[in-house]
Amino acid sequence: MNTYKHEVKYYECDRMGVTHHSNYVRFMEEARVDWLDQLGFGFEKIEAENVFSPVISISCEYKHPTTFKDIIEIEVKISKMSEMKFEFDYTMRSNGKLVCLGHSAHCFIENGRPVAISKRLPDFYQSLKSYLSVE
Amino acid sequence: MNTYKHEVKYYECDRMGVTHHSNYVRFMEEARVDWLDQLGFGFEKIEAENVFSPVISISCEYKHPTTFKDIIEIEVKISKMSEMKFEFDYTMRSNGKLVCLGHSAHCFIENGRPVAISKRLPDFYQSLKSYLSVE
Amino acid sequence: MNTYKHEVKYYECDRMGVTHHSNYVRFMEEARVDWLDQLGFGFEKIEAENVFSPVISISCEYKHPTTFKDIIEIEVKISKMSEMKFEFDYTMRSNGKLVCLGHSAHCFIENGRPVAISKRLPDFYQSLKSYLSVE
Amino acid sequence: MNTYKHEVKYYECDRMGVTHHSNYVRFMEEARVDWLDQLGFGFEKIEAENVFSPVISISCEYKHPTTFKDIIEIEVKISKMSEMKFEFDYTMRSNGKLVCLGHSAHCFIENGRPVAISKRLPDFYQSLKSYLSVE
Repeated sequence: MNTYKHEVKYYECDRMGVTHHSNYVRFMEEARVDWLDQLGFGFEKIEAENVFSPVISISCEYKHPTTFKDIIEIEVKISKMSEMKFEFDYTMRSNGKLVCLGHSAHCFIENGRPVAISKRLPDFYQSLKSYLSVE
Repeated sequence: MNTYKHEVKYYECDRMGVTHHSNYVRFMEEARVDWLDQLGFGFEKIEAENVFSPVISISCEYKHPTTFKDIIEIEVKISKMSEMKFEFDYTMRSNGKLVCLGHSAHCFIENGRPVAISKRLPDFYQSLKSYLSVE
Repeated sequence: MNTYKHEVKYYECDRMGVTHHSNYVRFMEEARVDWLDQLGFGFEKIEAENVFSPVISISCEYKHPTTFKDIIEIEVKISKMSEMKFEFDYTMRSNGKLVCLGHSAHCFIENGRPVAISKRLPDFYQSLKSYLSVE
Repeated sequence: MNTYKHEVKYYECDRMGVTHHSNYVRFMEEARVDWLDQLGFGFEKIEAENVFSPVISISCEYKHPTTFKDIIEIEVKISKMSEMKFEFDYTMRSNGKLVCLGHSAHCFIENGRPVAISKRLPDFYQSLKSYLSVE
């Protein structure tokens, strides 16, 4: 999988002159969208099945600040999965430095209820699983 | 109608230490939502009729910067209306100073097509109109 | 300490019609700012001392979605502190339901270097500490 | 000058499923930053001179909605300039359709006071001017 790149925008920096910490959660979403596109199961493909994938939890450990025009390279790895839930790790680097470590967990819902992805979207489940074993 | 108040948040300020100019467009939306609530025709009431009201145009003239914790008082006035379109003026003040003058124009759509608000939502149309004449 | 209230804005909701998950990190910052103001040590008071307090880590567990116009009540508690670091827990409720549990950790820096808050800002340190023992 | 491209992010779309109108103001800033970089006078180069360039006014006419993953191509033109002020026009297209027409005006300040750019940054002034005549 290719690493995702985000260039920090002027409006993403705060009064301290650095990227506001809340924006890394958005960069993680961008990188996850890109990773799923590379897998062949983009958001809109899943949503066309009337299945949605809400975020259950997120976390970020901020290691080094970034600022306007910095390129943040985000490596996404699927770190854990079950029939109901899947989890990603994000390693974010900029200018050769580790800037943030992220994590997110996700489930699937259809008509407001959790669904077992192995049964509802078996191809997607198998694809995700293959990347779990590889990495 | 009561004036709407927005307190500037830390994450709304940019590298120059002032409220990022794009955020005033969001404050205008907040003030418009509040004005329509006061009128008795909130967004969700209109949307429950399956009618949506997209923004056709916006403009802002920035008169004075604001920063973290400033209270921006926003006065909304309906400045113009026809059967298909209505327009608002926004006067934003903080600490006794004029900080921004805004303007927005809106139409109504149902199933993707423009609708005449006078026919589709006559009560709303009359209410809007009464404020146009008053102000 | 009073609970902080955030009313969800139209622009904070996403394509799924719910508050975008990244925004809770911003609500946590708003609540933290308010909590420190109530303590008598607002951001701008600390920053006037040339001391800054970057976020070291954040996490959110999403329990229930919220949407446009929901009032989110945020209870902030200082959960842990040392000379170099302090941590907050956030309990977010809306319409009587638990919607999100948050956590954040912070340090202090002066001229780009970590400082012991007990020595650099002893009054602030003692105030924070008194809330740690109470809660 | 190359056209700037912005791919619409998930978190930039609202409850109606379309790009929130406030975000176009941010896309205009991104395109302006890129245009000035191509000119050889990036934000950080100007700011290193202790000169800042606040936004005086912005406007947007929304022509067609865009959504998640749409690529918005933004053409920037300098439309007007004087010693104290310069103005840009933005033409935004996506999938062959005109989606938004934008405009912004800017001045220069140093130590909080307006400066004549022709005197303070003559090279920048001449570069800007050459694009005004060309286009």
